[in-house]
Parts: sequence; structure tokens; C-alpha cells
Amino acid sequence: MTKQRIGLIRVLTTADEKLLNLHGELVMQYFPCFDVVSRCIPDQPEGIHDAETERIAVPKVLALAQEMEREGMDAVIVSCAGDPAVEEASRSLRIPVIGAGRAAASAALVTGLPVGVLGITKVVPEAMSRILGKNLAADAVPEGVESTLDLMKPEGIQALVAAGRFLAGRGARMLVLACTGMSTIGAAGILREKTGIPVIDPVRAQAAAAWTVLG
Amino acid sequence: MTKQRIGLIRVLTTADEKLLNLHGELVMQYFPCFDVVSRCIPDQPEGIHDAETERIAVPKVLALAQEMEREGMDAVIVSCAGDPAVEEASRSLRIPVIGAGRAAASAALVTGLPVGVLGITKVVPEAMSRILGKNLAADAVPEGVESTLDLMKPEGIQALVAAGRFLAGRGARMLVLACTGMSTIGAAGILREKTGIPVIDPVRAQAAAAWTVLG
Repeated sequence: MTKQRIGLIRVLTTADEKLLNLHGELVMQYFPCFDVVSRCIPDQPEGIHDAETERIAVPKVLALAQEMEREGMDAVIVSCAGDPAVEEASRSLRIPVIGAGRAAASAALVTGLPVGVLGITKVVPEAMSRILGKNLAADAVPEGVESTLDLMKPEGIQALVAAGRFLAGRGARMLVLACTGMSTIGAAGILREKTGIPVIDPVRAQAAAAWTVLG
Repeated sequence: MTKQRIGLIRVLTTADEKLLNLHGELVMQYFPCFDVVSRCIPDQPEGIHDAETERIAVPKVLALAQEMEREGMDAVIVSCAGDPAVEEASRSLRIPVIGAGRAAASAALVTGLPVGVLGITKVVPEAMSRILGKNLAADAVPEGVESTLDLMKPEGIQALVAAGRFLAGRGARMLVLACTGMSTIGAAGILREKTGIPVIDPVRAQAAAAWTVLG
């Protein structure tokens, strides 16, 4: 059977092939029926970390998505919980466009349980917050964590677990991770073990969403 | 690795093992990491087909879900697009409860595209309609089709395709099937081919939802 081809967009600029392919490799490991090609946007070595860096990224993500459609991809995944340009790309492309944030929030909606959103930005990404609606019980950022690099230190993991427990204490019966960088450090597994509640991983969610939509 | 155990609830009473296990077999085929046990509710040989048959099914589905939790299942799937008792079970159980309707509607939400809902009941199931919100562009029932048995006849397939085309004409850029019986006859594949737009299959969606939530 021919594999379905997916274009995966990384929103940080890197020449490091291993870093570039991190999320795509996970998606193919989860769903061997996919052949994933990863590319990154130009001139943003620090990725997207505030409103301004998101604003300048949008046309770059859109251009990359359009290029991927022209090359015959079956779907595009924007591998960032902020879903930059996902709405624009969805309107302009004929193939399905999947954003990590929407995929994770939608997956959480399935159970109808109150959700805690755990990210590394002060504000819950707009699309996630809109999709979750009244199911969004609370949100939190691990204390002292400003990037996924911080999460890799022992005190970062401690802060992550503390934030997860804080959210469970605020009534969350499920956690959703609002940062795809958390997928590569196995944050979902750690949080599931320490809090005892289900945790949605955004790279896993975007992979499953692509698989469901492509049929 | 130990397989995760899923209890799958069929909302029609049957002693036919093959019919009973149809959806569970699909779920395990999609995700070999799952061990699915299928059971059906008692005394409803014609399943759920109107408000009254849904009303009497709710306590039965809930009791079966509670029994499955006591037996150590990791999650429960209610394999019916009407999501009977899913809300009640979700509130009362500690393990995740997944309904086919919510799973399919949530999966469609990921792309943000206008959705056409294609089922065999006049009204779009409440949870699906609530989740889709303004993304619900239109809904339709194949003409002359009152059960999945009708869908298996040549004129049933014709009516199915006509309904899909009608929805695409009403602005739907994605179809969601609101009947798990459509999964077993391969309706999604037929509609995808004939309409050229993505089609969400509810059994596929519930399998992916369980896989995402269980992590």
C-alpha cells in the first residue's frame, strides 16, 4: 500500500536534521502508514515565543503549506500548539491542515471532562481556548520554565509535576499539553504517572488527527 | 508490552458474536496495542432508533460501563454516534469514557472546515451538534435509508453518495458520518472517492480518540 504523504512544518529555523525531524519521526513511529517530510520556516532560530514572532511567522507557515500542497502532500501538520497560520492555510489549501493545538484541544473534548492546560506561555493559545470553551477548568505554566530547555533540567521536571498537580487541584480531570516541545521530553508520561489523570500529548494528538481525517 | 484493555459497548442486543465484535475488531485492527472486549446492552434487539429507545438504553449503558471499570478496563468506548449515557458515565467513572459521536465531531473540528453530517436519523445527535457549533454547515440522511441494512443495497449506496454530494453542494468541505453502522460497510471510503472531500468515520475516530487519551 502506498504511504500517505504528510508535510510537517516546524516553526523554528534549524539546520540540525535531527531536531528538524523530531516530531515527524514520532508521527511515523505512531503511524507507519505515513511518510512525513519535515521543513522549517526561515529566519526564526528562536521559533515563536510571543505575539510579534507569531505575527511574522504566519505568512512563512502559509507559504510552506502551499508549497507542500503543490508537491502533492496529502495533508499538512503545523507542529506548534499555537496553530500559527492554521486557519489561513485551511482556508487557502484543498488538503487538510492540522494544527497541534486544535488537535490536542479537540481530543480532550471527546471525554467531556474538565481540562487543565499546561504550557510554557502565560496565555492559553486562542484556538485551544475557543475549542475547549467551558471545559477549560484552569491553566498553568511550570514555575521558572520559559523554554523546553528548562524542562530538561531536574528542577524543570519538578516544576512541571507541581503545575500538573496544581491543575488537578483546580478541578482538572484531564491535562492537555500546550507545547509540542513537551512531547519530545516525554512530559505526558511523567505527568500521567504523577497526577493519575489522562494527559493529552500534542504531537500524538496531531498524528491521530491526521490519521482520522485522511481515512 | 501489556496491551491496554478497552471495554466497547454495543447498543443493540445480539447473541451473534461476529456482529457483537464488529466494531471492536476494527479498533484492534487499527491499534494492535489495544485488547478490546465488546458487550451489548440487554433487551434491545433493535438497538437505539428513537428518543424512547435511547431513554431506556441510558441506564443499561451506564451499568455496563461501571461493570467494565470494576473489571479493570483502561477505558470505555460507547460505539454509537448518539453517545447514549456517555455524559453520565464520564461523570461517574474514573477511567476515560469515549463516545463515537463526540469522537467524530471533535476530529472534524481539528481542521476548522465547514462540516456536513451524514447519518440515518433526522436530527444530528445533540453532542455532535454542540461540539461542531458553527462549523456544522448542513446535515442529511440518505433518501429511503432507515437502517444500515438499507445501506447495503445498491440503491442505498446511491442514496448515500447523493446525500454526500448534496452536503458538499451546501458548502461542506468535510463529511462526518453520524452512524457507526456506516463504518462496517465502508461508507467513508465510498464517499471520499465520490465527493473528493475528507470523510470522518466514527469507529476510526473513537479508536483514535482512545489511543490519544490513553497515551
